[in-house]
Amino acid sequence: MSLLVIGTVAFDAIETPFGKTDKIVGGAASYISLAASYFYNHINIVSVVGEDFSQDFLSILKKQGVNLDGLQIKKGEKSFFWAGKYHNDLNNRDTLDTQLNVLADFDPVVPASYQNCEFLMLGNLMPSLQLKVLAQLKTRPKLIVLDTMNFWMDIAMDDLKQVIAKIDVLTINDSEARQLSGEYSLVKAAQKILKMGPKTLIIKKGEHGALLFNKDEVFFAPALPLEDVFDPTGAGDSFAGGFIGYLAKTHDISFENMKRAIIYGSAMASFTVEKFGTERLIGLSKADVEERVQEFVDLVQFDIALV
Amino acid sequence: MSLLVIGTVAFDAIETPFGKTDKIVGGAASYISLAASYFYNHINIVSVVGEDFSQDFLSILKKQGVNLDGLQIKKGEKSFFWAGKYHNDLNNRDTLDTQLNVLADFDPVVPASYQNCEFLMLGNLMPSLQLKVLAQLKTRPKLIVLDTMNFWMDIAMDDLKQVIAKIDVLTINDSEARQLSGEYSLVKAAQKILKMGPKTLIIKKGEHGALLFNKDEVFFAPALPLEDVFDPTGAGDSFAGGFIGYLAKTHDISFENMKRAIIYGSAMASFTVEKFGTERLIGLSKADVEERVQEFVDLVQFDIALV
Repeated sequence: MSLLVIGTVAFDAIETPFGKTDKIVGGAASYISLAASYFYNHINIVSVVGEDFSQDFLSILKKQGVNLDGLQIKKGEKSFFWAGKYHNDLNNRDTLDTQLNVLADFDPVVPASYQNCEFLMLGNLMPSLQLKVLAQLKTRPKLIVLDTMNFWMDIAMDDLKQVIAKIDVLTINDSEARQLSGEYSLVKAAQKILKMGPKTLIIKKGEHGALLFNKDEVFFAPALPLEDVFDPTGAGDSFAGGFIGYLAKTHDISFENMKRAIIYGSAMASFTVEKFGTERLIGLSKADVEERVQEFVDLVQFDIALV
Repeated sequence: MSLLVIGTVAFDAIETPFGKTDKIVGGAASYISLAASYFYNHINIVSVVGEDFSQDFLSILKKQGVNLDGLQIKKGEKSFFWAGKYHNDLNNRDTLDTQLNVLADFDPVVPASYQNCEFLMLGNLMPSLQLKVLAQLKTRPKLIVLDTMNFWMDIAMDDLKQVIAKIDVLTINDSEARQLSGEYSLVKAAQKILKMGPKTLIIKKGEHGALLFNKDEVFFAPALPLEDVFDPTGAGDSFAGGFIGYLAKTHDISFENMKRAIIYGSAMASFTVEKFGTERLIGLSKADVEERVQEFVDLVQFDIALV
């Protein structure tokens, strides 16, 4: 009975129209496990960092109940580092620097204590590494969620399609859904992608919300209109973390419950973008989260009694 | 007790990635009054056409209960004509031809029988003409809704601001809200625009839905994910028509009822884009409209019981 999270734990340097940071903590698994930890406390991470990584951040994860037995700490090596600069619209960004460091020869190992996990979150990472993790699991999790990005579609589509064939829920953004399917209409794109393996598809549209599809149903979750999006880094990871954390907490993977999970995921993403990096995801109270979710409820609630 | 609609009744020639038309009926007032007529039957139009205009279409409007006493038909003149071509993403379009014809010296006259209207829809038109109509009304309508576009912000901002100061509800799209306010954040844009006059602002985001703001509240209405958007022409006008038609029918201009009205407006827009021009807005049944609205309810309905 646990949630296994695979993904990067890393450093980022970020520039947005509102400011810039030095090296701060980032990485898909960092955001995912932080966001999920507000709902669920049996979280296990498989990842890799260098000796230079922030001990403070690892302490924070542990305090949130995240198990780090599967986090490899490479002596004398440096953590994965990404630097990027967002355009004024915050929807596009340029990569300024990528230093793979420990990620270059990362060989993920799932500890014995992590076996029999019920929920698996494959955070954005090389598809070949995601496949390696899947191959090590002795029992298939109840639910496998995959997050990926256009980068892997460009350079590792065959591997990525192998992963996609093995999962239950895929989360990608709208342009990635179009790239993966070759369809401009998101409805048609969803129909094609659902034939590639996953039973459920989430198309993230950033400030425009998210769509949840299965073969027969569709649900739309709005994004909260914010005065300012300060730094979009990690929004998708936080969304995925809130989503799977809520599902793990409630032990219910029905479409109805996924609707709720998407709202919780959207709420976690709405926190993340308010400050740089993981800062806003640290130290939230239960009341903070519920208040935010209530804002989503208020935002879309209407009553139409059709006769 | 009536709804007064001002706007163009005209010809369009449209090219989309899915096909092209010869001259077909278009114009803001055509879409608005058709969409509104599914909810309300005391609709009066003030507009102008040439002798060349479609008698068939005027008959359709009359059958839908639309009063044409204020429609000037100019002998020996030609109707306003616009030709445009949409880009592949359907979000952008190029104007290929604009022939003002009867619109060049249009002098709107509100017939005596149109006075004391409760609801006024100022469809997209030169702001100076919208002002002329307002000046002719002997009593202020209960609700004045204005639709406009970036074109008037570019060439007639002073006139437009005069109109905006006199109305209750403004409907514009997201880039127009940014242009009008000078704010990128739509939340900040809304705050600024609500200080220019209107108590309520609707920001239309096309395939991404619409936001409804007043000073203290915000509501988000999704757009229906469609397999294909065939022709977006008239979507905004149909939205406005459904919105004000529903408000006129229900005689309730509270924020709560505007939420419902936006869903009805979105439903009417979702019909319009399925075919060229006004075609899909003709001959709908009450059941068609209610089924479509039910799709919106299903799309965003979730239950989260916060404790």
